[in-house]
Amino acid sequence: MALIVQKYGGTSVGTVERIKHVAKRIVASKRQGHQLVVVVSAMGKSTDDLIALAKQICDPPVPREYDALLATGEKVSAALVAMAIHAQGEKAVSLTGGQAGVVTESVYSKARIRKVNPERIFKELEKDQIVIVTGFQGESPEGDIITIGRGGSDTSAVILAAAIKADVCEIFTDVDGIYTTDPRICPAARKLDSIAYEEMLELASLGAGVMHPRSVEAGLEHGIVIHVRSSMHESSGTLIKEASTMEREKAVTGVALADEQAKMVIRDVPDKPGVAATIFSALGENKINVDMIIQATQKDGTNSITFTLDQDDLKPALRVLEEIAKMYSGSKIEYNDQIAKVSIVGVGMISQPGVAAKMFKTLADNGINIELISTSEIKISCAIAKAQGVKAVNALHKAFELDTVRQPQLV
Amino acid sequence: MALIVQKYGGTSVGTVERIKHVAKRIVASKRQGHQLVVVVSAMGKSTDDLIALAKQICDPPVPREYDALLATGEKVSAALVAMAIHAQGEKAVSLTGGQAGVVTESVYSKARIRKVNPERIFKELEKDQIVIVTGFQGESPEGDIITIGRGGSDTSAVILAAAIKADVCEIFTDVDGIYTTDPRICPAARKLDSIAYEEMLELASLGAGVMHPRSVEAGLEHGIVIHVRSSMHESSGTLIKEASTMEREKAVTGVALADEQAKMVIRDVPDKPGVAATIFSALGENKINVDMIIQATQKDGTNSITFTLDQDDLKPALRVLEEIAKMYSGSKIEYNDQIAKVSIVGVGMISQPGVAAKMFKTLADNGINIELISTSEIKISCAIAKAQGVKAVNALHKAFELDTVRQPQLV
Repeated sequence: MALIVQKYGGTSVGTVERIKHVAKRIVASKRQGHQLVVVVSAMGKSTDDLIALAKQICDPPVPREYDALLATGEKVSAALVAMAIHAQGEKAVSLTGGQAGVVTESVYSKARIRKVNPERIFKELEKDQIVIVTGFQGESPEGDIITIGRGGSDTSAVILAAAIKADVCEIFTDVDGIYTTDPRICPAARKLDSIAYEEMLELASLGAGVMHPRSVEAGLEHGIVIHVRSSMHESSGTLIKEASTMEREKAVTGVALADEQAKMVIRDVPDKPGVAATIFSALGENKINVDMIIQATQKDGTNSITFTLDQDDLKPALRVLEEIAKMYSGSKIEYNDQIAKVSIVGVGMISQPGVAAKMFKTLADNGINIELISTSEIKISCAIAKAQGVKAVNALHKAFELDTVRQPQLV
Repeated sequence: MALIVQKYGGTSVGTVERIKHVAKRIVASKRQGHQLVVVVSAMGKSTDDLIALAKQICDPPVPREYDALLATGEKVSAALVAMAIHAQGEKAVSLTGGQAGVVTESVYSKARIRKVNPERIFKELEKDQIVIVTGFQGESPEGDIITIGRGGSDTSAVILAAAIKADVCEIFTDVDGIYTTDPRICPAARKLDSIAYEEMLELASLGAGVMHPRSVEAGLEHGIVIHVRSSMHESSGTLIKEASTMEREKAVTGVALADEQAKMVIRDVPDKPGVAATIFSALGENKINVDMIIQATQKDGTNSITFTLDQDDLKPALRVLEEIAKMYSGSKIEYNDQIAKVSIVGVGMISQPGVAAKMFKTLADNGINIELISTSEIKISCAIAKAQGVKAVNALHKAFELDTVRQPQLV
């Protein structure tokens, strides 16, 4: 008997038929003797419908009310999944984030989960209930409804798994698992049997849409094995786990493309300490995530600071930067919202030299200009023109031999 | 400056445009210097949509999950109304029943409100917020989401008004006020300027759909003046208030038709004490409301017990009665689900003899057979064939001169 957290995404619970199918899988797991906590997203596009409704009334919407509104989507699907389980003869109870003990910080729409008080969940499990928990949401210490950002249901699932010390966290999605790259843009993409947290984290952060990065982080932090698998069939998917327990095939595990990026430049700011700090503190205070950063001294002795960010954050970032530009007379702001970021990721690259050189050469050979570069121990990212994103992915996937299976080797 | 509770029904918040219109009215009241607590129903037919969804998955639905599901409808509209108010420049905060301090008994789908802890509401009012509260729901002492029955938003509004000692409770609907009878079936129907709680209570219980009976009861109990008015225009509607403060026009104030009734008969049960008690206790335990009751001794010395009930309760009532019939061998159950109940209501009839006789004669003159009769001090009801309901209403409306205005006279 294992204690399992399962998470079903919006597509998996998108229709009455799919909800019944999901219930069947849950009931089957239960009848194998497992204890189950199930995290669900909102049905299909229902969150998008609620967003559209809100924007017709108030744009930008009031954050507190926006969260209260969006949180209803998961409440609907959680109740329906619980009913579908009842209809198949097992007991189930749906809990809101608040009822399940999920306490978030008091920040609307992008809150982090502060802690989970799992008493109610354990109480229901002891009563032989299957516990359905609304993903994507919790309650502030003041008792207000808070959402934790889109895609946050994965995070809800992994953090709940950690809080109740689950044996595994199964993320059911509409894909078979984690691929070497997005199969929709690269037909040669292959499914991976396992991937290290760190690699997945880089891939998730880079826009490989399957998993929310925070959920992988939570898995890494708490040592929760995450099993990403299809809700449509029974075959196993990809295990996200510790690198040390895996055999490695290649220097590079995956290629990722994030194509909804933007680039901003603030030119002609003074070359003195504290300027970059001022800019990025202000962006941080406004909850704008900045990605790659380059600071370069120009011929006239002033600095130019370039960075990339999500397209969605471009408008608020512009407002912040325009305020800051007033402090530095003569400074100018430029931006480009047609940017993509292509990245290669692999724990294996730590031990293999020349990986970066190979990436840059591959892009150059394909006539792709690199605008910014950023690296970590297990990742190299290049900002390029959005129009060249798909070409770059296919070229890199081939160059690093991700389309072929090699004998695994221990790192 | 007054403290006002306003309630907007599902039609009033049925579209984005209507929500904006409702917000405009709320903001106008606020800018007249009033403090406002606004109770909202779910948008238009959204509750019906949720019910249909639930029934596709589990029929009958699991009560706990059904409540959690249906309660999302008001959460959506409350958040949207709050946003619409923000968009018009005033501050508003939406609260769920639980957040607003509405504590219900631990019975799903039909719970009564036990108490209201209005601290949070007062806290928000002090911060100059317009407080939007989800109607139709509260929380059990255990923290589970509970609904209080359909149409319960009126009750939420009046009980909240009592809890915060509001000056008036305004119920905004898609009709102009309370009519002498349903204008859809009787073109001669007239709007009333005021009506006594007791009269309204009878009319509401009798199926005059404008107000939920429990809300009128709550108004009576706590002395809250209820103003039923149109959300579409500014003119005043009908005040529901104490009879003693009103001038009376006629013996009869209104005629009501409830046409979704059923009749049940249990025949050949022993004529001994406790039989009726057994039957009606069992029905009561199953939360089935019974209306008119006749017990008659038959020629063979056994009893027959006839009663009317809502059509919706017929199926569960049949199950209960079949169990009971097993205790009395030879007893038989019959039913008819094509029954209507036509009623005349008026505080004035206390002081005027001959009202009942006039009602029976009017029905007889129109060829309408009376199946059961029940009376109270201010009401006479007759169960008749459903097909004759509309004819009965029009005949009685004319007979009691409800289509003409007379000089008011004090009772």
